[in-house]
Amino acid sequence: MKKAIVLLSGGLDSATCLAAALKAGFECYTMSFDYGQRHRNELAASENLSRAMGAKEHRCFVLDLRQWGGSALTDDTLSVPKEGVADTVPVTYVPARNLVFLSLAASWGEVLGAHDIFIGVNSVDYSNYPDCRAGFIKSFAETVRLGTCAVDDNWKWVIHTPLQDLSKAEIIRLGVSLGVDYSLTTSCYDPDSEGRSCGKCDSCRLRHQGFADAGVPDPTRYTE
Amino acid sequence: MKKAIVLLSGGLDSATCLAAALKAGFECYTMSFDYGQRHRNELAASENLSRAMGAKEHRCFVLDLRQWGGSALTDDTLSVPKEGVADTVPVTYVPARNLVFLSLAASWGEVLGAHDIFIGVNSVDYSNYPDCRAGFIKSFAETVRLGTCAVDDNWKWVIHTPLQDLSKAEIIRLGVSLGVDYSLTTSCYDPDSEGRSCGKCDSCRLRHQGFADAGVPDPTRYTE
Repeated sequence: MKKAIVLLSGGLDSATCLAAALKAGFECYTMSFDYGQRHRNELAASENLSRAMGAKEHRCFVLDLRQWGGSALTDDTLSVPKEGVADTVPVTYVPARNLVFLSLAASWGEVLGAHDIFIGVNSVDYSNYPDCRAGFIKSFAETVRLGTCAVDDNWKWVIHTPLQDLSKAEIIRLGVSLGVDYSLTTSCYDPDSEGRSCGKCDSCRLRHQGFADAGVPDPTRYTE
Repeated sequence: MKKAIVLLSGGLDSATCLAAALKAGFECYTMSFDYGQRHRNELAASENLSRAMGAKEHRCFVLDLRQWGGSALTDDTLSVPKEGVADTVPVTYVPARNLVFLSLAASWGEVLGAHDIFIGVNSVDYSNYPDCRAGFIKSFAETVRLGTCAVDDNWKWVIHTPLQDLSKAEIIRLGVSLGVDYSLTTSCYDPDSEGRSCGKCDSCRLRHQGFADAGVPDPTRYTE
């Protein structure tokens, strides 16, 4: 059975991505990152999802991106925007986050012999983060091929992005068809102390609109 | 003054690389990584070098690559080879290490506004690690450009590799001409408890031969 690393944040997209990886027949090794994010409650969601969905193994990798901050998710002096999704890169962008996460996935993957990585990036209903775009992912695949040990003459790394061109509603419909229990997921950037979602940050807005557009009841617990 | 991140392991190459970055007029932010390596004494060397050579700031970033091992440097059940440098990738290769380190440098760099990174990789007197080759570095520069926030239409990241095509002896001569105090550096993969070098691992062999070829006294403290 072919192995794959699946980046699993605990949110809607990555849970759907894991479902797609399992459906494709991969033995899945899931990874979350405790990087100093404001919304640490996603880490428990990630671990629960990994177990509930049948991944082979789950790792929560610890690294402190809060030490240099630069994002509303890793610096408490910056506020999470609540006014709606803008056209520019918002302050919730975490510098080079997906580059760092994919690199660590490659490190574990090389040890496991897993040269397939799944990541739930999306270029439709997203926050304009540069590290969610297809060109970045394509370039990363070539970089990691060049920077790791070849196992044969035709080897390559495949970075799977099954959600890249789907709307949020299409992602949710895909996940529902694959049996994803979205009540186990959390997307909010700024949850309250009981883990309830704010309903106003970009991530909550995109998620809530997605459920509405998909005609699927939104299972999210909101603060108000 | 233009800012640069300099990866500084505490070894001979990276110390020379820092000297080259300073000589080129950059304000230097040095980074070492406490990743679970066998030769942790390099971390103190890195901090000392950064201070002695006049870097602006030093960070030691903590991340546990020992959790999946896969290298004699991060797994105590694997031995560091002492028989001499081979033609294949040796067991001291740490999976995707430079990819992970460069990605973290890019994250800090993006926050600092430093889009120049110096890394002391070398393709001449080296251990055949894939992540030291020029093709990997070139590809990484494009990947990080695509995965981070553009600051203008013509922006790019520059990954400086001033040692790429130099022999070890040439690196040492360059460093001596720039005033590097090599007695502050440590290269051994398997030092003893007092921090003395084994003299037999690939890193020690390449270093010792380099001093001999350069006609420079080797200031290394060896076990025997």
